[in-house]
Amino acid sequence: MTNRRDNSRVIKAPMGPELSCKSWLTEAPLRMLMNNLDPDVAENPAELVVYGGIGRAARNWECFDQIQRSLRDLNADETLLIQSGKAVGIFKTHENAPRVLIANSNLVPHWANWDHFNELDKKGLMMYGQMTAGSWIYIGSQGIVQGTYETFAEAGRQHFGGDLSGKWILTGGLGGMGGAQPLAATMAGASMLAVECRPSSIDFRLRSGYLDEKADSLPEALAILRDAIARGKPVSVGLLGNAADIFPEILEGDMLPDLVTDQTSAHDPVNGYLPQGWTLDQWEQMRENDPKAVEMAARASMAVQVRAMLEFQARGIPTVDYGNNIRQVALEQGVDSAFNFPGFVPAYIRPLFCRGIGPFRWAALSGDPEDIFKTDAKVKELIPDDAHLHNWLDMAKERIKFQGLPSRICWVGLGQRHRLGLAFNEMVRTGELKAPIVIGRDHLDSGSVASPNRETEGMKDGSDAVSDWPLLNALLNTASGATWVSLHHGGGVGMGFSQHAGMVIVCDGTEEADKRIARVLFNDPATGVMRHADAGYEEAIDCAKENDLNLPFLKNV
Amino acid sequence: MTNRRDNSRVIKAPMGPELSCKSWLTEAPLRMLMNNLDPDVAENPAELVVYGGIGRAARNWECFDQIQRSLRDLNADETLLIQSGKAVGIFKTHENAPRVLIANSNLVPHWANWDHFNELDKKGLMMYGQMTAGSWIYIGSQGIVQGTYETFAEAGRQHFGGDLSGKWILTGGLGGMGGAQPLAATMAGASMLAVECRPSSIDFRLRSGYLDEKADSLPEALAILRDAIARGKPVSVGLLGNAADIFPEILEGDMLPDLVTDQTSAHDPVNGYLPQGWTLDQWEQMRENDPKAVEMAARASMAVQVRAMLEFQARGIPTVDYGNNIRQVALEQGVDSAFNFPGFVPAYIRPLFCRGIGPFRWAALSGDPEDIFKTDAKVKELIPDDAHLHNWLDMAKERIKFQGLPSRICWVGLGQRHRLGLAFNEMVRTGELKAPIVIGRDHLDSGSVASPNRETEGMKDGSDAVSDWPLLNALLNTASGATWVSLHHGGGVGMGFSQHAGMVIVCDGTEEADKRIARVLFNDPATGVMRHADAGYEEAIDCAKENDLNLPFLKNV
Ligand SMILES: NC(=O)c1ccc[n+]([C@@H]2O[C@H](COP(=O)([O-])OP(=O)(O)OC[C@H]3O[C@@H](n4cnc5c(N)ncnc54)[C@H](O)[C@@H]3O)[C@@H](O)[C@H]2O)c1
Ligand SMILES: NC(=O)c1ccc[n+]([C@@H]2O[C@H](COP(=O)([O-])OP(=O)(O)OC[C@H]3O[C@@H](n4cnc5c(N)ncnc54)[C@H](O)[C@@H]3O)[C@@H](O)[C@H]2O)c1
Repeated sequence: MTNRRDNSRVIKAPMGPELSCKSWLTEAPLRMLMNNLDPDVAENPAELVVYGGIGRAARNWECFDQIQRSLRDLNADETLLIQSGKAVGIFKTHENAPRVLIANSNLVPHWANWDHFNELDKKGLMMYGQMTAGSWIYIGSQGIVQGTYETFAEAGRQHFGGDLSGKWILTGGLGGMGGAQPLAATMAGASMLAVECRPSSIDFRLRSGYLDEKADSLPEALAILRDAIARGKPVSVGLLGNAADIFPEILEGDMLPDLVTDQTSAHDPVNGYLPQGWTLDQWEQMRENDPKAVEMAARASMAVQVRAMLEFQARGIPTVDYGNNIRQVALEQGVDSAFNFPGFVPAYIRPLFCRGIGPFRWAALSGDPEDIFKTDAKVKELIPDDAHLHNWLDMAKERIKFQGLPSRICWVGLGQRHRLGLAFNEMVRTGELKAPIVIGRDHLDSGSVASPNRETEGMKDGSDAVSDWPLLNALLNTASGATWVSLHHGGGVGMGFSQHAGMVIVCDGTEEADKRIARVLFNDPATGVMRHADAGYEEAIDCAKENDLNLPFLKNV
Repeated sequence: MTNRRDNSRVIKAPMGPELSCKSWLTEAPLRMLMNNLDPDVAENPAELVVYGGIGRAARNWECFDQIQRSLRDLNADETLLIQSGKAVGIFKTHENAPRVLIANSNLVPHWANWDHFNELDKKGLMMYGQMTAGSWIYIGSQGIVQGTYETFAEAGRQHFGGDLSGKWILTGGLGGMGGAQPLAATMAGASMLAVECRPSSIDFRLRSGYLDEKADSLPEALAILRDAIARGKPVSVGLLGNAADIFPEILEGDMLPDLVTDQTSAHDPVNGYLPQGWTLDQWEQMRENDPKAVEMAARASMAVQVRAMLEFQARGIPTVDYGNNIRQVALEQGVDSAFNFPGFVPAYIRPLFCRGIGPFRWAALSGDPEDIFKTDAKVKELIPDDAHLHNWLDMAKERIKFQGLPSRICWVGLGQRHRLGLAFNEMVRTGELKAPIVIGRDHLDSGSVASPNRETEGMKDGSDAVSDWPLLNALLNTASGATWVSLHHGGGVGMGFSQHAGMVIVCDGTEEADKRIARVLFNDPATGVMRHADAGYEEAIDCAKENDLNLPFLKNV
């Protein structure tokens, strides 16, 4: 096994308008690879880990060096192949072909499990690419906040005519991911009550500005909410307590939430969920001494919380599972109706996917925050009537710190993405921006993922596990001229459970780039609309028609 | 479930120089799709089944019609997407992009089994694409003969300096696949003794000209062989008998074979292997009445046969398993050393794959056999010093009947394929050929398949299950400008056990096609050389160097 840990390395992407490669189409992947390993961006850069467990940017340091050398050498009509984080070949293609093609962590299905992967990983034959780690388009924690923001905003659209003012959301858990909930809620215009059993988690979110207030009792928390609602200004409150106690208590009072969810770590009954009536110390000790007893107590409490969530739903309050598996545990505990409330993707994200809307993002290769602010303004100019989007951009500018190369994330859909891309390219051409812009997205997007336990849970036609779709997405992005394209396995939900594709395109200001951008940033979300239209979603069929998609199967409908 | 059986349809590809689509790049996939369903080509065309169990060309008849309409409409800068045999979208790309991109039968690994596939298949959401069925480049039974011929020829190169004259091969089984063995052997210059227990199988091979002689006793068979060897002319003999009896009997005599293998249906112990001492009638009856007893008796006999095979090997005679799983059965019967002799891919095919050699094939869209004979001559002209290849071409012309559009298969490797492609394109350009030529290959090829139980069994570095490689192959062929590219799952060995990619390119006589052909037909086999070089095979590393491949990892070696 070659060198995978190197504490001496500090990687920072070059910034500014000077090229270290032969063109911007090869400079861009070089800088984005390096940016993924910037200590301000990556979780564990010494081991090349970007995020999400062991999601890596390159297989090992030798491979990282070799990829850099390959990119510096690469000509305008050549394509570099990356196999699980290693540069394996450079081939003659043509100028409208991708400059880099990536396949990470893919295993023949019968062998597609962590055991076999770990064996190959140890031998130095593979790496885990997660979604944006191995495909060089991770942009830090902005993504978490906006995913949650979009989820809440879509709930607002579905249930409250798009206006969340005066509404409040009840949730549990202010941990690594869950801690983004209060910021996302207030950005979306809603207030939030987040029940969290650990004082340190509450204090951490207060310090980072993600949470506004804290309370030690339910009456105190409700008073803060009532007051904020009266003043017309959303507020987020962290309430110290056990969600399994507080959720039922709220049901007994007269101030009910407008939306209910939960992000305690219910997926891990031993370590992730405090049983009712236990202190944190007791929990800690028992986890060491009698994990089975912890698990049983935690499961019983989760059933209590899910019963309360079902009661909220029964009273007409929209209630969703946020991907922590709490329904499954409750079901196993005898709560037969646990799956009466839906998961968040089918409930709130799928309608966006039906219109090709997903985590579109871009980075300024200049390194200059001003370039991002100018693109922010351009987005508002081109999409003038989307208050929700403007709100996100304003809030993001105000409240989210840049990490590494300045970047932005912004959920937009089919018909909009290529307009933004063309405008950014024009801004590069005229010199309004100091250097090219890189545009990409998460693999968690409308047309690019098959993941039956999350993104494709409960598809209308039952096609959750069909992975033809992300493969077609990657092939089409390659045919359309994206700058780099990737095919991964196991992102998000682990080995065996997902297949997904990434794409990145560079706005280098040229007219050739205009043509590629127009194709790629239209076709890419269009594959998502197609996939959902084929599954029978009306919104997708409508969107396809509005955008004049040529979908042969619709001609028979 | 929409219409999958239609007995009224008789599909024949259009022939000749008239276009029914807007260009040859779309006419070609149309004709090849139709050719796959020609009653002279397909096994069960009424149900769209081409070959290999349920390997289909289109999902159902509605989808077949829709694909045809889509291809007839398709413009020179558009790309049609096919998802498990259904036309799902037409997108704007560019002239050097593929006209069709195909993904068939792909499932997220955890769900990648026959049960889940069958469920989706029944719902009309999927189809099984096999390898060349769903990717529209099946060319009938030529492939079986040549695969076996190449296997024997490679054995000849490895063990007998490339000269099989005066040698004889011992095998068992003259069934559907195994019946190609005698023809392949004599084509390769060797004699063959094939032990077959069913008189009807022997007679069928005699009638079709695949087998030369039959014998009822071992002495009689050996006399025919001895005589042919003395006369310097290879002969094939079908000996009526049980392989488990005859193999050990031969060991007792003084005339030993030069190569040993077996193609009885040992993979199916109940229906595929006649137990020693049983008559065919007895076998038939017992299969009905007591299948367990048949299985036990058959397994015991297989162990006897494998012990004989091990003894041949011990006496220095090359011995291989031909993919019928007979080693596994013997191992389970207590023959501990059963896996001492290798499978045929690691033994004979892998050295070819290391040089990018695989089942290259082409078809004449004119429908005129003369076009194929002219290309045969061109191959000989361009590769003048390959006696083995010339022999194959002569024999194929003489002994193999065309099915559907006239076509040819011919195993050639990196550095040769693109030269042939360019020459064919030139012949189309000058009018020497009456219409364009389509060039493709099986998915069973050097760089295009991950299949740990067959094509990637026992890779040197243990990377058998890594499927990054076929995915990169498909992405690169797309980037290089193949006319159609496909990504399939489960071909050959069934759901869960393989991932593989196809490509086809059209020689329409244009100069643009020259450029695409030069790239695609070089890059495609080059990915195979790359994959094997990365796994550490010296032959592949040498081949990469000879062909000036740019493989970054070799620079460190
Ligand atoms: N599907 C998705 O895309 C998605 C997105 C985000 C999070 N999630 C899921 O959400 C869960 C939370 O993720 P995380 O990264 O924030 O986990 P985490 O472990 O960092 O945080 C969980 C928090 O819940 C608190 N908690 C535990 N038991 C509690 C109880 N009984 N009452 C109140 N608070 C309690 C803990 O103190 C902790 O702060 C996980 O299960 C994760 O898988 C899924
Ligand atoms: N790995 C590969 O690429 C590959 C290629 C070809 C065949 N195969 C394998 O080879 C085997 C044969 O394939 P097939 O299509 O020809 O099968 P088949 O069932 O059509 O033919 C098997 C033949 O063996 C004969 N036979 C059975 N028991 C016998 C015995 N004891 N002695 C002598 N003859 C006996 C049968 O009468 C029959 O004619 C299968 O197991 C197949 O999977 C593998």
